[in-house]
Amino acid sequence: MKLLVSNDDGYQSPGLIALADALAQLGEVFVVAPERDRSGASNSLTLDVPLRARRMDNGYIRVDGTPTDCVHLALTGLSEADPDIVVAGINHGPNLGDDVLYSGTVAAATEGRFLGLPSMAVSIASHEPRHLDTAARVAVQLVTRLCEQPLESSIILNVNVPDRPYDELNGFMATRLGHRHKAEAVVTGQDPRGRTIYWVGPAGPEQDAGPGTDFDAVRRGFVSITPLQVDLTRHAALETLGRWLTGAAVS
Amino acid sequence: MKLLVSNDDGYQSPGLIALADALAQLGEVFVVAPERDRSGASNSLTLDVPLRARRMDNGYIRVDGTPTDCVHLALTGLSEADPDIVVAGINHGPNLGDDVLYSGTVAAATEGRFLGLPSMAVSIASHEPRHLDTAARVAVQLVTRLCEQPLESSIILNVNVPDRPYDELNGFMATRLGHRHKAEAVVTGQDPRGRTIYWVGPAGPEQDAGPGTDFDAVRRGFVSITPLQVDLTRHAALETLGRWLTGAAVS
Amino acid sequence: MKLLVSNDDGYQSPGLIALADALAQLGEVFVVAPERDRSGASNSLTLDVPLRARRMDNGYIRVDGTPTDCVHLALTGLSEADPDIVVAGINHGPNLGDDVLYSGTVAAATEGRFLGLPSMAVSIASHEPRHLDTAARVAVQLVTRLCEQPLESSIILNVNVPDRPYDELNGFMATRLGHRHKAEAVVTGQDPRGRTIYWVGPAGPEQDAGPGTDFDAVRRGFVSITPLQVDLTRHAALETLGRWLTGAAVS
Amino acid sequence: MKLLVSNDDGYQSPGLIALADALAQLGEVFVVAPERDRSGASNSLTLDVPLRARRMDNGYIRVDGTPTDCVHLALTGLSEADPDIVVAGINHGPNLGDDVLYSGTVAAATEGRFLGLPSMAVSIASHEPRHLDTAARVAVQLVTRLCEQPLESSIILNVNVPDRPYDELNGFMATRLGHRHKAEAVVTGQDPRGRTIYWVGPAGPEQDAGPGTDFDAVRRGFVSITPLQVDLTRHAALETLGRWLTGAAVS
Repeated sequence: MKLLVSNDDGYQSPGLIALADALAQLGEVFVVAPERDRSGASNSLTLDVPLRARRMDNGYIRVDGTPTDCVHLALTGLSEADPDIVVAGINHGPNLGDDVLYSGTVAAATEGRFLGLPSMAVSIASHEPRHLDTAARVAVQLVTRLCEQPLESSIILNVNVPDRPYDELNGFMATRLGHRHKAEAVVTGQDPRGRTIYWVGPAGPEQDAGPGTDFDAVRRGFVSITPLQVDLTRHAALETLGRWLTGAAVS
Repeated sequence: MKLLVSNDDGYQSPGLIALADALAQLGEVFVVAPERDRSGASNSLTLDVPLRARRMDNGYIRVDGTPTDCVHLALTGLSEADPDIVVAGINHGPNLGDDVLYSGTVAAATEGRFLGLPSMAVSIASHEPRHLDTAARVAVQLVTRLCEQPLESSIILNVNVPDRPYDELNGFMATRLGHRHKAEAVVTGQDPRGRTIYWVGPAGPEQDAGPGTDFDAVRRGFVSITPLQVDLTRHAALETLGRWLTGAAVS
Repeated sequence: MKLLVSNDDGYQSPGLIALADALAQLGEVFVVAPERDRSGASNSLTLDVPLRARRMDNGYIRVDGTPTDCVHLALTGLSEADPDIVVAGINHGPNLGDDVLYSGTVAAATEGRFLGLPSMAVSIASHEPRHLDTAARVAVQLVTRLCEQPLESSIILNVNVPDRPYDELNGFMATRLGHRHKAEAVVTGQDPRGRTIYWVGPAGPEQDAGPGTDFDAVRRGFVSITPLQVDLTRHAALETLGRWLTGAAVS
Repeated sequence: MKLLVSNDDGYQSPGLIALADALAQLGEVFVVAPERDRSGASNSLTLDVPLRARRMDNGYIRVDGTPTDCVHLALTGLSEADPDIVVAGINHGPNLGDDVLYSGTVAAATEGRFLGLPSMAVSIASHEPRHLDTAARVAVQLVTRLCEQPLESSIILNVNVPDRPYDELNGFMATRLGHRHKAEAVVTGQDPRGRTIYWVGPAGPEQDAGPGTDFDAVRRGFVSITPLQVDLTRHAALETLGRWLTGAAVS
């Protein structure tokens, strides 16, 4: 098996290294990752300027682009043979609820969708994780399971692992994404030259974080696994929308 | 009514100006847009550095960030009162099928979701449009309709308008997103100093572009309107995933 | 006469427009300027990525690069015929003393040196200038004088104009660059996520700002004109250095 | 003795590591360097956004800014005690003649000038150097010599070392900067989307590269050492300029 591994924290991230090292027991690992921290990059793709790729001493390839660029390049040219799976992470910090939309880690996994194979994004629920080995072991288990028993190919698994010893995990749980309230207000300040600056504020408090959500699972010590879809169409609304449009028709 | 207008082509884009001018007949328009072209930015949010906002002579506010940053700032601090709707565009070039995932225009609309109001992304199906007035008129019609007859609040409308005179439109059509084949291979080249560079290749050919898709509607001269969801959870897969996980359980 | 005009504040800067408009009375003006504010860019030249140039409605060409990139491109390819002179500005804010080293405006002028023609950087001594017409008129006078009576070709004139009505100028003065004390301490802060950030502090107080310096001339209401050299060799030290090196010789 | 070491190739550059390791025999080495390659940055200083500094496992501090930012931060806040000398390098590739103006390595050294101590920029004359130990040994010799026998404090030494074994060096030579002809024409191309792009072309051929120049010394196997000045005023032209200005006087 050939595994493509990427992330958004950059090619030097301990989480990436832990993931690549652990997955090496399952097959050939090919790492293509950003040269620096690109958290928050979402699915941003670089079209205006060319990218450069450089093979490091440890065999990793670093790219001066976004997580999406890394996986895109790997799948459309850098790699000699197509990988069998894309695994992104281990992200330092959780990717839960609405935050998934901004996540470069999830975006890297998403970019693997044209393969027709499940992809996986793995995050650990602490910004300064102490138990990367726990998350790495979970990743190995899930990849192994995907090989034995494939899921529908268009599903992306968003995996969040509590930052605790493996033996203290309470199990695996299939979850839906929770939701947050509106983000906190922008933080307004001044630079040393007296000009106004704005910092994007903290994420809002949890709004839908009860049983069944990823927030709840992680809080209770479970590995949260959310199936994500890449089809953004809200199919259930198509019929309603069709009727609604008759009232807005071209006159 | 107060309308927040943004885009990803930058505050000087003719598409933005046409949209803002047309919507002014419906209420107070508040424009917050990127200082330069940020196409392909997806939902990228700037957390590492502060943002700056500057009011231009025409009242527009330009921000040195992404489309998502612009709407985020407008909704969490820049604007005195919450707008009633967010409209992004008019993008020069279509946002159809899989490309929606990378679109800064759609991302700007998506960022309005915390308002609990429908948002709308408007694109015209030509990179050098000649009929921006057509798309602007369509936007006015759809916003008017949303006021009269609200849709479920979490729906985002992704609107693509053929680049032709309004009278030559064939109507409005509710569509699903089509899909493309895998992207073309990366384009490998050399810079003038002899070093290898990689350009992200063109989007792949259409794979699912038949009746019912946005690709098909636009090709046939209809305004394509796709309801998008912001909930990325694939709810239909939750039960299957739950069973599947029993085979990967923590040992 | 053909005049190449550039700046570092960006192609929309009122100072650039005032300069280009005024110089148009002397010949054909060709404007190539950065697409956004690139103050502090110094002589930074973009080698890693390609540049894009776009002709705007007013005939200006904007480039997504540094001031140095703009002039470099104009002189090595964009322009059909070589210009006769390079004029950069009008910078909003002074470029005096040690600050010249960081200035993108002065760098744009410097990049014209391969022409074998004098270049000129023009700044107005206020960040929110009210008398751009004064500085524009000074620029016209100096360019006119350069045509009548050329200076040695490798000299770059660094011109700083007080922000006051032309009639209230006290004259022109040939000056040397003054010097500042060490910069103020870095301003340490925290971003909203609690991480430490550092802002480059304000420039230090003036150390050598007495009679004969550019600081002094501007303070006293004169137009300060400093001849700059592009040869960074300290010729006077060559002999001493030669002797000194005998004590460090390869053993 | 406390030595501040920086560069423009980034904190992982073998040249930086070789320099820091070698200088450690002379005193306490404090490394503050850019997080990624910033060649060509010149004296660019970051004023718009804050900087972040991170101490790496090997004690180096990496900064997400330019070479000038790194030295500026180190001297105005990061470092507890002022260093006694600033050494920048070892740059992979020469910094000779006109190219010095664009060099981030030389800029890093220049930023040390407020200390009132000589600074030094060290480059090796090959982009893929094989004899970094030669350049490191030369740096140690020169720093040792500066301690024994200080030079005038405002002098910056620009050192270029041939890429050959130390025993094959022909000696040290005090040089002036040579000069190049105008740069080669811009290289025009197209991106994969058919849009025109421009690459800055190669540096021009040597024009003034005879005996006494840095070009000549390195070509002949000598270590070239050029004294640079930070005072950009062309003092010799002040009197002429004063007379010249009488003809451009305020009317």
